Amino acid sequence: MLVVMKAQATPEQIQAVCEHIVQLGFRAHPLPGAQRTAIGITGNKGEVDRGNLEELSGVAEVIRVSKPYKLASRDVKEEDTVISFPGTDAAIGGRNLAIVAGPCSVESREQAFAIAEQVAAAGAQFFRGGAFKPRTSPYVFQGLGLEALQIMAEIRERTGLRIVTEALDNETLDLVAEWADVVQIGARNMQNFSLLKRAGKLRKPVLIKRGLSATLDEFLMAAEYVMSEGNYQVILCERGVRTFTDHTRNTLDLSIVPAVQRLSHLPILVDPSHGTGRRDSVLPMARAAVASGADGILVEVHNQPEKALSDGPQSIYPEQFVRMMDEIERIAPVVGRSLPRGIHIGSEAPGGPVPSSL
Amino acid sequence: MLVVMKAQATPEQIQAVCEHIVQLGFRAHPLPGAQRTAIGITGNKGEVDRGNLEELSGVAEVIRVSKPYKLASRDVKEEDTVISFPGTDAAIGGRNLAIVAGPCSVESREQAFAIAEQVAAAGAQFFRGGAFKPRTSPYVFQGLGLEALQIMAEIRERTGLRIVTEALDNETLDLVAEWADVVQIGARNMQNFSLLKRAGKLRKPVLIKRGLSATLDEFLMAAEYVMSEGNYQVILCERGVRTFTDHTRNTLDLSIVPAVQRLSHLPILVDPSHGTGRRDSVLPMARAAVASGADGILVEVHNQPEKALSDGPQSIYPEQFVRMMDEIERIAPVVGRSLPRGIHIGSEAPGGPVPSSL
Amino acid sequence: MLVVMKAQATPEQIQAVCEHIVQLGFRAHPLPGAQRTAIGITGNKGEVDRGNLEELSGVAEVIRVSKPYKLASRDVKEEDTVISFPGTDAAIGGRNLAIVAGPCSVESREQAFAIAEQVAAAGAQFFRGGAFKPRTSPYVFQGLGLEALQIMAEIRERTGLRIVTEALDNETLDLVAEWADVVQIGARNMQNFSLLKRAGKLRKPVLIKRGLSATLDEFLMAAEYVMSEGNYQVILCERGVRTFTDHTRNTLDLSIVPAVQRLSHLPILVDPSHGTGRRDSVLPMARAAVASGADGILVEVHNQPEKALSDGPQSIYPEQFVRMMDEIERIAPVVGRSLPRGIHIGSEAPGGPVPSSL
Amino acid sequence: MLVVMKAQATPEQIQAVCEHIVQLGFRAHPLPGAQRTAIGITGNKGEVDRGNLEELSGVAEVIRVSKPYKLASRDVKEEDTVISFPGTDAAIGGRNLAIVAGPCSVESREQAFAIAEQVAAAGAQFFRGGAFKPRTSPYVFQGLGLEALQIMAEIRERTGLRIVTEALDNETLDLVAEWADVVQIGARNMQNFSLLKRAGKLRKPVLIKRGLSATLDEFLMAAEYVMSEGNYQVILCERGVRTFTDHTRNTLDLSIVPAVQRLSHLPILVDPSHGTGRRDSVLPMARAAVASGADGILVEVHNQPEKALSDGPQSIYPEQFVRMMDEIERIAPVVGRSLPRGIHIGSEAPGGPVPSSL
Repeated sequence: MLVVMKAQATPEQIQAVCEHIVQLGFRAHPLPGAQRTAIGITGNKGEVDRGNLEELSGVAEVIRVSKPYKLASRDVKEEDTVISFPGTDAAIGGRNLAIVAGPCSVESREQAFAIAEQVAAAGAQFFRGGAFKPRTSPYVFQGLGLEALQIMAEIRERTGLRIVTEALDNETLDLVAEWADVVQIGARNMQNFSLLKRAGKLRKPVLIKRGLSATLDEFLMAAEYVMSEGNYQVILCERGVRTFTDHTRNTLDLSIVPAVQRLSHLPILVDPSHGTGRRDSVLPMARAAVASGADGILVEVHNQPEKALSDGPQSIYPEQFVRMMDEIERIAPVVGRSLPRGIHIGSEAPGGPVPSSL
Repeated sequence: MLVVMKAQATPEQIQAVCEHIVQLGFRAHPLPGAQRTAIGITGNKGEVDRGNLEELSGVAEVIRVSKPYKLASRDVKEEDTVISFPGTDAAIGGRNLAIVAGPCSVESREQAFAIAEQVAAAGAQFFRGGAFKPRTSPYVFQGLGLEALQIMAEIRERTGLRIVTEALDNETLDLVAEWADVVQIGARNMQNFSLLKRAGKLRKPVLIKRGLSATLDEFLMAAEYVMSEGNYQVILCERGVRTFTDHTRNTLDLSIVPAVQRLSHLPILVDPSHGTGRRDSVLPMARAAVASGADGILVEVHNQPEKALSDGPQSIYPEQFVRMMDEIERIAPVVGRSLPRGIHIGSEAPGGPVPSSL
Repeated sequence: MLVVMKAQATPEQIQAVCEHIVQLGFRAHPLPGAQRTAIGITGNKGEVDRGNLEELSGVAEVIRVSKPYKLASRDVKEEDTVISFPGTDAAIGGRNLAIVAGPCSVESREQAFAIAEQVAAAGAQFFRGGAFKPRTSPYVFQGLGLEALQIMAEIRERTGLRIVTEALDNETLDLVAEWADVVQIGARNMQNFSLLKRAGKLRKPVLIKRGLSATLDEFLMAAEYVMSEGNYQVILCERGVRTFTDHTRNTLDLSIVPAVQRLSHLPILVDPSHGTGRRDSVLPMARAAVASGADGILVEVHNQPEKALSDGPQSIYPEQFVRMMDEIERIAPVVGRSLPRGIHIGSEAPGGPVPSSL
Repeated sequence: MLVVMKAQATPEQIQAVCEHIVQLGFRAHPLPGAQRTAIGITGNKGEVDRGNLEELSGVAEVIRVSKPYKLASRDVKEEDTVISFPGTDAAIGGRNLAIVAGPCSVESREQAFAIAEQVAAAGAQFFRGGAFKPRTSPYVFQGLGLEALQIMAEIRERTGLRIVTEALDNETLDLVAEWADVVQIGARNMQNFSLLKRAGKLRKPVLIKRGLSATLDEFLMAAEYVMSEGNYQVILCERGVRTFTDHTRNTLDLSIVPAVQRLSHLPILVDPSHGTGRRDSVLPMARAAVASGADGILVEVHNQPEKALSDGPQSIYPEQFVRMMDEIERIAPVVGRSLPRGIHIGSEAPGGPVPSSL
């Protein structure tokens, strides 16, 4: 159910409707839009009686949302969600392409800084690096943990790059949320509903990678899990699915980009590194991702990929990252985008103060 | 690395070798076999120096295990693992087929008992019922939680059936381990490595369902995660994988049964309910599973499937369960198995005292 | 559209209805059943006027068939189709399991006879051997062609085994139809509609192997192509589909057996050799196929698989074939079947004269 | 095996080497490159004795080709193959993007001309239209056949557009080769080896669409089948593969574009219409295809898609085609390409006379 408020509804009226919903035993999710606010109603207590709601002051109409995902649906919020980062002009969603770059794993302070400086110089706004690594084998490098988070916090301080890193479970979720700017939920955890709900209690952006065999509906339902707990700052990320093909490690399914954008207001990035598993396919697929309309790129860059502790074969060299940035900058205008180069601290988003994401 | 002890090695010699391994900074996993004990060495500290180990008294040889899974591998333990349940003659693995039956979710005391009594009467040894349900949507029935666990404990007391139920996360893992006999890790959590490691610290059998797009290696590595923490009581379960086909909900991949049995000593069950998603395919696939050599069947039975809160269309009626038991009982001897009818409390496993599982 | 005749309708009445249908510009397909005859109407000239048809004498009712496949549908013919082979008691469909065995390719007279004699002695009723091989590479052995057909004709004469072999195109179709008893359409040609139509003009049984990525509907539509041209002797064969898994060459989808049997009256065999690509998986999957309810097994047997010119790794040894026969013979009664051992020339099918298959 | 001739080798020397190869019982495939000619050796007569060959005059070296595809391999021909069309400046491969556009099926003279004029005006160089349609059902529209070929020949005469259309079997292959400029082999026939060999005897360009479950190797082997018969004018076309996803009809696998270009010298087009099955995904995927480096686009355009006899939902409107052309024109320079608008009759390819394609 969705309560659409009148354009001129006051904050007090919105507040009153929310309280009414809570009294009925449901949850209220106010979602401010450009024209007016909608209030999503969730909670599995059965049918909502629409009669009373329509009579509250400020309410324009009450509509049923037929899709399984509600808060993630464009039916509920027509405008694209833009995730902004207070104190900077970095954003995910909107006109500017977001570029997240860095090594698969933070292996050492030296390695991380070397790569961070190069990707910052080339114009990335976000640094990615694994602190806690989900590895198929229990006997291989599992990440530096807290030490990696601290190194990345230093990188943020030094370069201004915002930090994106993965949380594996409830324990690491709290730690990651404390140190990073965006909390990543990995592909293998896309249907770890317990972790998604816990991420929904954070007030930090959450980036959800598509599961290896996730359908579009399941992908959006993962976002819905986070949003149903009140965290609306969700970023989706396509990273390849598992098919019979063997020329790439996974099959990058770019067609999900326009499909997500039809159905949802959430931003979607593309990860051509995991999506192909091959360095020589990363640039072609990064270009294709931007051309398909993606909101940005998440890419693995390593200064010495042949020595990387994980995912070396799919990490590009810093020189290739520079070339990638040049190429996608030229494609961006065709899809109504631009590529801002780097992050500006203390500045505001173009056109005014940083809006809250929803 | 694997240290193979001489047949006549004493417990003290085994103990001494384990201590030596720990002193070197690794973990030692003594795995008693029919003829002699092998000691698996794990831990990612790099290369083990085999020289010293070979000189310890009681050691026959030190061999390298080339597969990514070590403790799950048949190289390390030639005999099939049999998981037994103290105080009963129920077992998973070995000559007897294990039958796990019950509703998708425990919906009420009445429903659970009604089904439990029928499956017990028809010869099941294990009752399955969801207490914590991983649901694609946050807005649907998520299980009765603790109440369901308590109902199932009563069922155990009343019927003797051993209880199998799923844990979703670290919190529910502890709760499930407290109340149930077998802790299930669901398909969506098959690569939730944090949960697997935590399950490895339990001293209860863990049943791992194959992920929707898991390869054989990944499936065995999930078991390895649990075993690497010292819990060797692992049961695998095929439950269908995701493919392009649309005549069943998933594609039941029975060919993994002989493949697992070639490579691993762990028992493997088959779930024809999730594996097909259609009531009218469950019996044919249950028969096929037993014929393929599976160690047992995990099947959803509901007394009123049309009213089930989850998975109704794939739950069979109690009458169908009776027929299934009759059919697989007749197939069992062809694969050197038999179908014991029901569970005998207080008795011992045939042929002597209950052996520890490894 | 389907015209259902009254139980007591005379052959003349049936004939008159067929002629009426042809005059309307459609094709008439009389399908005799146990109780009464149905007449399928096909042809893409648009809507049939049911009014006139219902008034013809002998007509019980005229019904619309809503599925895309009509002649293959159980709606049109309720009884299972049994394909019989005049002059023998061999049959495909019905109570008896049909066993088709032989090498991937006929490599020489000696090899073919050696294998044929062994599979005949073990109870196969059909010999399979490739004369024309569809090979991924143009540079490898493509089959002995006509010479192989002649060798197999000799085998039939000597052993009584009926011959199943593949046709690749219109040219080889005519040749195969001339020499063999069953014309096989391979998986890669399952949607070669031109070849299917041509096979529909034959009056010989046609065995269609499921395509590597064929859905159930597409599989039945391939049968429909053959039937729409008047050849109703169609046998289906599951042989594995292509998925992400890597422990077998293909993923044998046994769940299609009950699905086909629900929707269609056509018999379905299972090929565990191509379905797994591994010798050590063939027996488990052959057992599972019979347990799932399949109408028979098509299996590759080679006396020297390590020297086979094609598909050696998936061919079983003659001794394994003997064991397979023993095992499936014991499973057969559970699914209401029996395994006749071998073929009896000159005899009639049990219970009376050989009925025409439709 | 590959004989690499010296840069200064004379036509007579090349001819002498070819004759020598034929005398040895093999086939010789002279493949002229920019610097020098290579001669591929095929034929399954076993090992070639390299000794004699290396001594022939003009021979630089004899090398073994380890990949299963030889003539399609970049090892054999380093330069990209460019297929040109005598009497025009149209080309497939090379710097210019090739645009093939038109309806799924030619439905009438009016429909075909209406669409052809619009796509020609917008800059397409090739017209596609089905004359013989491979349809899943035998009961639906199968194409206008010869009449469609004649209509397309008129379109070529009137607009200069070159004609691409599909052949289903040997009979239609000859007819299509007579009337069209490029003979298309459909996805369902990608492993119809008989048809591929027959297409190899043509001296017309052949466009091979990737099969629904074809691996990269199988795709290149299909090309090899055509080339092994002496027809080196092969164009590949990615059109989506079959996976578990349901938001598009097929999964467009753009990562095969750089993979093909690494391994083969053959041009590769992308078909975003079949690749997605949804009109609203065609433009995003067409842009992505060009950005990935594809040699061109094959797209379905219909003036009244809602009335189309086949594939209406995936056909774009002429206005959308205009927009697509504008968008890919702007992306082309990023990948070193340009989009020539339309076809120029009587002119020569830029930079000199039309080179033979190989």
